[in-house]
Amino acid sequence: MDDANGMDDMGGTNGPNAGAIADTNADTIAGWLERLASADPAPGGGAAAAMQVAIGAALVSMVTNLTIGKPVHAAHEENATQVRERADALRAEALRLGREDEAAFTALMTAYRLPRTTEEERTARRDAVRSATHAAALPPLAIAAAAADVVALAESLRGRSNPHVVSDLAVAAAAAAGAAESAAVNVEVNLSSLPDGDVKAELTADLEEHLAVAERGRALVADIRRELTR
Amino acid sequence: MDDANGMDDMGGTNGPNAGAIADTNADTIAGWLERLASADPAPGGGAAAAMQVAIGAALVSMVTNLTIGKPVHAAHEENATQVRERADALRAEALRLGREDEAAFTALMTAYRLPRTTEEERTARRDAVRSATHAAALPPLAIAAAAADVVALAESLRGRSNPHVVSDLAVAAAAAAGAAESAAVNVEVNLSSLPDGDVKAELTADLEEHLAVAERGRALVADIRRELTR
Repeated sequence: MDDANGMDDMGGTNGPNAGAIADTNADTIAGWLERLASADPAPGGGAAAAMQVAIGAALVSMVTNLTIGKPVHAAHEENATQVRERADALRAEALRLGREDEAAFTALMTAYRLPRTTEEERTARRDAVRSATHAAALPPLAIAAAAADVVALAESLRGRSNPHVVSDLAVAAAAAAGAAESAAVNVEVNLSSLPDGDVKAELTADLEEHLAVAERGRALVADIRRELTR
Repeated sequence: MDDANGMDDMGGTNGPNAGAIADTNADTIAGWLERLASADPAPGGGAAAAMQVAIGAALVSMVTNLTIGKPVHAAHEENATQVRERADALRAEALRLGREDEAAFTALMTAYRLPRTTEEERTARRDAVRSATHAAALPPLAIAAAAADVVALAESLRGRSNPHVVSDLAVAAAAAAGAAESAAVNVEVNLSSLPDGDVKAELTADLEEHLAVAERGRALVADIRRELTR
């Protein structure tokens, strides 16, 4: 990612949407998907990962909403209420992180466009690109953490929520697991152009930790599918 | 799923949104996620699976849009153009299937609410529930097929598209793989309340076929992550 011609090859960022981070919340589904599909590189994979987290968090909330207040599930009321609060917050956080990812990517593209005629300019540009690349790895890392949190919430509802929406609980876990994998790619694509060192090692270790939790989402899906097909 | 008290436990479908299948395309992201999170069981896991397909398809389109028209990628122009056409169509199809899933679920809930005072009513209700359950398995099955198609398109772009968006290609595959797993749960939850027989065996075989293709999405993600972290 450190050759400028390669970055020029991304195209699109000087288009009508350049620099404008739309308010994802107010975007229509079709409009957001259209922007995702466009030649503008942002929103891209990072925003898509964030949306998968938001979908998983929303389904966790739905399962709690169909559990809370029902006498038959009274024993799970307290846990479900706590899970709902956290899931609602994670949904909002995911959308915010999607916008942060978009902004960090735009900042990175701006750094790549710095002048590089003189030696001083080349040095300044290299430092700016390195710093922006590090910054661009942070939103997807936070998205991976949020995905892991969604998986943990889904796990805590297993056997402790309305069994008629157990399939929705599985979908929450599947979306969060997919989100974590998506976020991981976006962390790694940024780390790949950073020099080896403490910062890179630390971010990689953090990512591995989130991925290990998120991987349990797939086990939860498998467990629920076994229940449904036995 | 065949006890009516259990279905009453779902709640929400007599609420203000009862019977109203919103136009997902025009929904805002925040509004759709709010409906997903609500106690209304639709939209639920089926719609979430469809949205994951749409996200994957949109990212496939994005990768083609950053490949087509660039002299350096001229060799891949024809394939990318074909892939883009199919990916754009799959995105629209996924949103349509999400709405179909919601409608089929609502129809199933209506069948569960049929009267069951007399023996005739009970028989009529049982047949209606069975028929609606079968019908409710079809949209998620089609969503699984669409997810498999997105994975196949992503595969065909590997090494034949702009390498600067290879991470977006991986996210497309991750989202589609998560979508397939999500759709599978929704097929299986409906099949679980159908009697064994030819119809059930056929739908199960179709699902397995889609899942086998979609599973390759995860291999594509792993392959790209290896490239990024080597």
